Amino acid sequence: MSEIPHVVAVLGRGLVDPDQAVVTADDLGLTRGDGCFDSARVVTDLAGVPLVVDLDDHLHRLGRSARAMAIDMPHLLEWTRLVEEALSQWSTPGEAVLKLVLTRGREWRGGGPTAMVTITHRGPSAVAGSPRAITAVTLTRGHPSDAFTDAPWLLGGIKTLSYVVNVAAQREARSRGADDVIFTTTDGYALDGPTSGLLVARGGALLSTPTGGTGILESVTVAAIFEAARADGLETRYELVPVADLHTADGVWLVSSGRGPALVTALDGRPLTTAPGLAARVAGWAGF
Amino acid sequence: MSEIPHVVAVLGRGLVDPDQAVVTADDLGLTRGDGCFDSARVVTDLAGVPLVVDLDDHLHRLGRSARAMAIDMPHLLEWTRLVEEALSQWSTPGEAVLKLVLTRGREWRGGGPTAMVTITHRGPSAVAGSPRAITAVTLTRGHPSDAFTDAPWLLGGIKTLSYVVNVAAQREARSRGADDVIFTTTDGYALDGPTSGLLVARGGALLSTPTGGTGILESVTVAAIFEAARADGLETRYELVPVADLHTADGVWLVSSGRGPALVTALDGRPLTTAPGLAARVAGWAGF
Repeated sequence: MSEIPHVVAVLGRGLVDPDQAVVTADDLGLTRGDGCFDSARVVTDLAGVPLVVDLDDHLHRLGRSARAMAIDMPHLLEWTRLVEEALSQWSTPGEAVLKLVLTRGREWRGGGPTAMVTITHRGPSAVAGSPRAITAVTLTRGHPSDAFTDAPWLLGGIKTLSYVVNVAAQREARSRGADDVIFTTTDGYALDGPTSGLLVARGGALLSTPTGGTGILESVTVAAIFEAARADGLETRYELVPVADLHTADGVWLVSSGRGPALVTALDGRPLTTAPGLAARVAGWAGF
Repeated sequence: MSEIPHVVAVLGRGLVDPDQAVVTADDLGLTRGDGCFDSARVVTDLAGVPLVVDLDDHLHRLGRSARAMAIDMPHLLEWTRLVEEALSQWSTPGEAVLKLVLTRGREWRGGGPTAMVTITHRGPSAVAGSPRAITAVTLTRGHPSDAFTDAPWLLGGIKTLSYVVNVAAQREARSRGADDVIFTTTDGYALDGPTSGLLVARGGALLSTPTGGTGILESVTVAAIFEAARADGLETRYELVPVADLHTADGVWLVSSGRGPALVTALDGRPLTTAPGLAARVAGWAGF
């Protein structure tokens, strides 16, 4: 089955033909976006042996999302077995994305949450070690930087299945001729990307947007970069960066587990410069 | 099949057993909440003949949602036929909700949008003509009242499948001992409910929140009430109402096609009073 570019495994059902329907019309993940997900990088060597990067971190983040939404999280052992089942059918060399999806389940019949794992190839263009340079535009998220403080019903910091604004923002970026988006607040700060965390180099330190009141998602990859950078002697801080500062920074990246750190070379049509050698160091810290 | 409390019909497939899966793991409606929906009231008489209220209005609003999201809307004739197919299996007397669901379709295979219709009974407690009185709490939506101006990527006014904040807010209301929510802006105005429009009687006029910059959804039922109230000689206006004014208003309702106008009798634990006779008039204007 090594030619199959997609694998689907559903909890309680096992491996499923990717063309087969798996979710009923009343699944709250479908009808309300009422569920959460997480994505991890899969690297498969030329012998066809896949490795999931930081699977535990992503499973734990999914567990935090589920708890915040009061969705019963299947046991980690069940997830691990489901991931193994999916991986047993995956041997396409190169980069892929493993997605963990958890919904609140059916509205009409009960029966508990729906849980599934998918693996998707990132295509021939996604080659580990290749430089990733992108252009971006800033788009408002429509809220101030403290909007999510004391408002847990807004589900800040949670990777829910209600993801459509992220999709629409990326469509807006493409319509403006850019690759990606840096979201901004109504009070003038940079937030994150639709599917990525923000990393800014400034004054010899690495900065990223704080979670909490900003509502942004904690980034597993930013945390990994911070850890490696600190071991290399750099200062790292979670602090709000004014949008204007992006244009004078020593480097700006949008960081995700699938793509790694993508260097932003132009923002809103204006070129950004990067301190010499820094892009390679950031890629190294990220393990890309 | 009159005992079956749920009906599902899928475009290109027809009637489907409600327990049968209809959506694949890569459907963007499921994985990204990337789709839209609309809901209409179904009234079925004792002879089992169902009637959908304002179906055309709801289909047109769905079409506007689809256009704003750049999703191909199936032809109205296809929708009408699908609705008729679903209705042909529906004869449960009383109140039901007909839901039109449209997703962007599959990510891996193409094939166009996924479209389906479901009918769900509202249960024995939902009887036409019965008084509907609820308690509510105010919860911030985290954004100012003009957040959606010139920001189409935020998908204001569109009934998308990314609906989870509405669900979480209703959960928060229940945990506070209330039935429902009136969302508020960071600049102190009332918006709407998670699944309903807001109607306020004040100074002899009926008010409802304007669409546009507020991001709220246009309410088919508020529009119907406004039309009937104007024919009855009342003034109606779309204008922002300060949250504080809700406590001194002549009446506050959360209005939806399924439930009709639900009178809010207490807000944040404080009783609200309603001008004598007004609740019955509003119910009449709404056709409930």
